[in-house]
Amino acid sequence: MKKHNFFAGPAILPQSVMKKAAEAAVEYNGLGLSLMEISHRSADVVEIMNNAEQHVRDLFNLSDDYAVLFLTGGASSQFYMAAMNLADSQEKTGYVDTGTWSAKAIKEANKFSEAVELASSKEKNYTYIPKGYDVPQGLNYVHLTSNNTVFGTQTKEWVNCDAPLVSDMSSDIFSREIPVEKFGLIYAGAQKNVGLAGTTLVIVRKDLVGQRQRDIPTMLDYTTHINKNSAFNTPPVFSIYVTMLNLKWIIDHGGVKAMEERNEEKASLLYGEIDSNPLFEGTTDIADRSTMNATFVLKDNNLDEQFLSLCAEAGIMGIKGHRSVGGFRASMYNAMEKDSVETLVSVMQHLKNAHA
Amino acid sequence: MKKHNFFAGPAILPQSVMKKAAEAAVEYNGLGLSLMEISHRSADVVEIMNNAEQHVRDLFNLSDDYAVLFLTGGASSQFYMAAMNLADSQEKTGYVDTGTWSAKAIKEANKFSEAVELASSKEKNYTYIPKGYDVPQGLNYVHLTSNNTVFGTQTKEWVNCDAPLVSDMSSDIFSREIPVEKFGLIYAGAQKNVGLAGTTLVIVRKDLVGQRQRDIPTMLDYTTHINKNSAFNTPPVFSIYVTMLNLKWIIDHGGVKAMEERNEEKASLLYGEIDSNPLFEGTTDIADRSTMNATFVLKDNNLDEQFLSLCAEAGIMGIKGHRSVGGFRASMYNAMEKDSVETLVSVMQHLKNAHA
Repeated sequence: MKKHNFFAGPAILPQSVMKKAAEAAVEYNGLGLSLMEISHRSADVVEIMNNAEQHVRDLFNLSDDYAVLFLTGGASSQFYMAAMNLADSQEKTGYVDTGTWSAKAIKEANKFSEAVELASSKEKNYTYIPKGYDVPQGLNYVHLTSNNTVFGTQTKEWVNCDAPLVSDMSSDIFSREIPVEKFGLIYAGAQKNVGLAGTTLVIVRKDLVGQRQRDIPTMLDYTTHINKNSAFNTPPVFSIYVTMLNLKWIIDHGGVKAMEERNEEKASLLYGEIDSNPLFEGTTDIADRSTMNATFVLKDNNLDEQFLSLCAEAGIMGIKGHRSVGGFRASMYNAMEKDSVETLVSVMQHLKNAHA
Repeated sequence: MKKHNFFAGPAILPQSVMKKAAEAAVEYNGLGLSLMEISHRSADVVEIMNNAEQHVRDLFNLSDDYAVLFLTGGASSQFYMAAMNLADSQEKTGYVDTGTWSAKAIKEANKFSEAVELASSKEKNYTYIPKGYDVPQGLNYVHLTSNNTVFGTQTKEWVNCDAPLVSDMSSDIFSREIPVEKFGLIYAGAQKNVGLAGTTLVIVRKDLVGQRQRDIPTMLDYTTHINKNSAFNTPPVFSIYVTMLNLKWIIDHGGVKAMEERNEEKASLLYGEIDSNPLFEGTTDIADRSTMNATFVLKDNNLDEQFLSLCAEAGIMGIKGHRSVGGFRASMYNAMEKDSVETLVSVMQHLKNAHA
């Protein structure tokens, strides 16, 4: 029976990507050696890294004004590296607080700049995306979490301001078109729409880096990695290889525009059922619903166990909600096929019929 | 034809480890999903991480005084994290400069402490390990690079001092027995004797951390990762899995004592040929020769190309020396079988006979 992988992250990857990764773990490119045991300076690995970078450039039509880096440490490391690299201690940066990860980003940025909270939806347990807030002049950048994996909300319209946007796109990068020119820095842990946990994608406008007063440790300075094509030290080669394969898969399937259509179709299907099925309800404002992570509850939580059992019987995995929200969360990243969402919808209908 | 993998790093792994990694990339533990696409909070991944930690504890007979962490960023990130976590800015730390990586460690440590150079072999292009140097009182720690991958030297005797030792063991950890109680911190990039590039092993005495004045970014504070069992954020699961498998392989093959015997046998074989073959000579002091990375040259470098051709014909890969030393480097990590060294020796003998 096919398993339907709704995990929030690490998350579903295309079958063809996993198959090629497995092959490379045994032998790569006829070398007689595994990709896991060859030098990061070898021509084969350099080619993988160059291709991974090029795929990112192609997917977002990036100009040479931007550097594309494959770092480590997850998005959590970018929380402080962003401020460390883009602001001086006495300078102001702007943050919109839309959930768990935004709040962590603000905390870390405060160690390296004066992080100003521009807006927050905390008072309603992050069930919506703040809009219409003022952005003061003179901020180094404005930071947004584009998609909130825990709470199931997603930024649909990008704030207009003079400052460049900085965005944690860990859970929705490459899921839709974005106005790249508004952004000074985009970062994403790989384990959702990018590739394999272990690398962190950083897209940064080159003119913004190397301008700070502080003495940054070499490994934390974007300039180091720009100058060395992400190979100043040994990079996480296998994670970057899987990333390269996954980005190629996105390109081969029509790029971000096609992913956007595919993701909207899946999300419409699930949200349609959530709204029409009398047993269920969504947990966020409808206008701010994420196409990547749908959060919902059973109105009668006595039915939770039965629903989870039915899901398990249908091969649905990873549907339990984050502990801070409860209920259920269905993550539907790029690689998820429509039939997985259809299976979930049919289980929801089955539960409705059983309690009609 | 079998390939003989002498790459310095990323480097050879046991065949059985790569085979199991490939299987996990397709499906893990009968889940119907790949290990690459399941949550780091799932029971399967938690078990992998616990096992990896336990294997490190077993290999070094570690007491509960030590924490075992799987971080990211490579040994290069530990260059600053060691000083950042273990010393205050006005405090002194001691460093022995034995090569490229030591020099980088000193540079980064100076950003967070007063890093005192205790000894250096730089004046002889790092061809030996300094000995008999004074260690002043009052240092927070004394830092050593246990094995110098680039130059082919290895610390054989550990300096006696009151301060705890801190060691970059990236290229010889688990290759031999060590007096663990002398160490306050041991770190190693995974891509040699530990496992797969993408994780960094950190073994740290718990009483040394959390004592500093400075405000450390959450992700850079060892305390964060100690408290969360290396899963504060998404860890590089696949790299840690390969690491777990490789550590289990070491245990199943007799542990570090057996590795030490195996490595000494291989190194004796190669150094014996280097010393007896009139065409070759070693590049380091004999007493300080590394069992992991043997560096050597052809006395007549007009023969270099012919030697490299013969190596290629015999399936020998990764034998070219580091650009800062030239000549040749044969890396013989734990997973290398004796027959690979025998093959290299036979090529060296063949070259000798051709020029007799």
